[in-house]
Amino acid sequence: MAVQNKTYTLVKCRAVADIEKISENINITIDDNGRIKSIGSEIEGDEIDCRNYVVIPGLINAHTHSAMIALRGYYDDAELQEWLRKMWEFERSMSKDLMRISSEIAIIEMLSSGTTGFVDMYFNPEQLKELSNIYKIRVQAGYTFLDNLYDPYLIDKLQRELKPEGYFQPIINVHSIYATSKETLELANQLSKELGERIHIHVSETRREIYEVKKKTGMFPVEYLNSLNMLDRMQLVHLGWVASWEIDLIREKNAIVTNCPTSAMKLATAGFFPFKEMLNSGITVTLGTDGPASNNSLDMFREMKNAILLYRHSYWSTSVKAIDAFRSATYEGYKLLKVKGGKIREGYVADLVLLDAKRLYPLFKDRLISHIVYTATGDMVKAVIVNGNMRTKDEILERLPKLIERLHRLLNA
Amino acid sequence: MAVQNKTYTLVKCRAVADIEKISENINITIDDNGRIKSIGSEIEGDEIDCRNYVVIPGLINAHTHSAMIALRGYYDDAELQEWLRKMWEFERSMSKDLMRISSEIAIIEMLSSGTTGFVDMYFNPEQLKELSNIYKIRVQAGYTFLDNLYDPYLIDKLQRELKPEGYFQPIINVHSIYATSKETLELANQLSKELGERIHIHVSETRREIYEVKKKTGMFPVEYLNSLNMLDRMQLVHLGWVASWEIDLIREKNAIVTNCPTSAMKLATAGFFPFKEMLNSGITVTLGTDGPASNNSLDMFREMKNAILLYRHSYWSTSVKAIDAFRSATYEGYKLLKVKGGKIREGYVADLVLLDAKRLYPLFKDRLISHIVYTATGDMVKAVIVNGNMRTKDEILERLPKLIERLHRLLNA
Repeated sequence: MAVQNKTYTLVKCRAVADIEKISENINITIDDNGRIKSIGSEIEGDEIDCRNYVVIPGLINAHTHSAMIALRGYYDDAELQEWLRKMWEFERSMSKDLMRISSEIAIIEMLSSGTTGFVDMYFNPEQLKELSNIYKIRVQAGYTFLDNLYDPYLIDKLQRELKPEGYFQPIINVHSIYATSKETLELANQLSKELGERIHIHVSETRREIYEVKKKTGMFPVEYLNSLNMLDRMQLVHLGWVASWEIDLIREKNAIVTNCPTSAMKLATAGFFPFKEMLNSGITVTLGTDGPASNNSLDMFREMKNAILLYRHSYWSTSVKAIDAFRSATYEGYKLLKVKGGKIREGYVADLVLLDAKRLYPLFKDRLISHIVYTATGDMVKAVIVNGNMRTKDEILERLPKLIERLHRLLNA
Repeated sequence: MAVQNKTYTLVKCRAVADIEKISENINITIDDNGRIKSIGSEIEGDEIDCRNYVVIPGLINAHTHSAMIALRGYYDDAELQEWLRKMWEFERSMSKDLMRISSEIAIIEMLSSGTTGFVDMYFNPEQLKELSNIYKIRVQAGYTFLDNLYDPYLIDKLQRELKPEGYFQPIINVHSIYATSKETLELANQLSKELGERIHIHVSETRREIYEVKKKTGMFPVEYLNSLNMLDRMQLVHLGWVASWEIDLIREKNAIVTNCPTSAMKLATAGFFPFKEMLNSGITVTLGTDGPASNNSLDMFREMKNAILLYRHSYWSTSVKAIDAFRSATYEGYKLLKVKGGKIREGYVADLVLLDAKRLYPLFKDRLISHIVYTATGDMVKAVIVNGNMRTKDEILERLPKLIERLHRLLNA
């Protein structure tokens, strides 16, 4: 049922759910520009029978390292600093071929599990640009400032040559404060101003990071970034150890934040992202799986659940609800991408996920968001639409077996 | 490929993994009594091509409430006491039909996601006895002492009439110390001694429970149960707030414990099961999903991962490894059921799960346990064998659509 570049209608969707509304037995017409044209009883163009599907907006994975598929399961049982040393050791000699095949596999995994866009931090953005347009999945990626692996002036030069194209938008990646010098941060900041690109960085992930940044600069990490006049163009990932006054700074400067609950728990960082406080401040709160070597799943359904679980456990409170995680994964993700999406409304991009209605039960309207967050996994996805381009799960998975064979050959070589 | 009551061989399994060993490209012969006859190069009886499967022992869900499928998504965003009130309100008028259909659906979900046996606390053990033998899945269940719903003398009478049969074994369920009187606990204890049946109970789930038991009895919950001379025949579920001297008592009395990490987090109980301390003490540590209204998934793969995540987050330590969760879900579960299983060895029961090898990558021997725990979900299960009876996922799911239709009719009535 692959559909592309023409008008068609999802007919009699069992349910259509976004953060604002749940409708039942309703049609969605998608126009030839990949936008939602109408929601209601209209039918136009090809008809796709959706009586067995629950339709939700596409999920945005706001933070991952797709090429680390090669490193999935490589070193799982260690804390962050030791884990990073192991990763960097491997990455120093990672071939371009291995990066590409890994990112391609990750894209197939993400798309097939309902992820319609993602933000990537790694060293292969040109490959991701090509792959994003082959697979028609929204990607933001860039070269990564990481002083012990790459000369920052080389990164600066490469990033200037990286241009947007189709489904791909460049962003500037900075690994972290602890893995870059002040000069590198200033270089990245200058570049961000010149190119108008957002800076995507790991911040306040461990207590050790807080201690070291404080010792070196006299400031907490977010305060430090603010002192460098960067905060207004930043996407801050992790924030497990952020302080309340830093949350105020984030709000003032309109920085965007990303919660990666599974990775935080798996790496025993002990921090907990202040989800509710961030929401209450009106900050744009997005959700990410982190990479396949630190999660190790790229399934955003599992991540929505874990965002709730980590918060509730850490705060002794059920004040964060299923809808909050659903909002982070959909509407807030599209804000990060600067794409009018994440709601199923006329004029929004047709980035949609068709879930198997038979697997979400008891299927009552008022239980649907709960099922999506607490019960569903990406395996319940039957088809995915990005910018109007519809693919079934089988179509998405078609190339996977060959890619895995090649991955194994490259890793054994 | 349904196979039953005859000798057959799983040929060229891509990998075979249990807690002790991982082998590749190897055969498993299963005899007509449902036992593993050999592991190696022998072939006997029908041949099943397993080149695309990774074979692991069946998973045991050590604590659930299967009939609560009807309540999945019914009331998700509340803390334990409020949540329980809502559940009991509904359960007071729950029909036998609704319990049965719910348990049947839960069994299909569990079996299809690799669970070969489970321990159930609810009010429909006779139904579970019948279902366990229809579906050929190992079940331990019993009537539940819960004073505000049922007269304990009625429960005592009913439990005496409940007999083992085929895949079913009776156990005595006691909801909790806080939901039963001392007299009820003593009645349950007497019954346990007479019938030789284990007592399965929720203990030390919240801080409030600790406070109230301490206030009422002067003792901590596990101490209190020990003072009633019950501990040596108990399965203690939750233990998020257990004290170190209680762990010593548990070890002395050889009680079995069950970790339900997802439910603990979702209900914001704030406690954390001392997984590593329990392991180090040599206590039998099992794993459970808890019910579909408090998790809400019955997928033991997701539960293995969450056991690691909760521990690592709470203890700031990665000392609990993937293999520990895998052991709890397999070998330790079979100890609870008193069945010689949970390892893939000659003479052990043929309770096996065939996972799709194509979805576990990079597929290297030394990464396999990591993939099973951190990446896999029950959706990667392709076939399940219990006591030699093999069923494909499609065969297991066959009746599900009709059952869901009936569930919806019953809930709307």
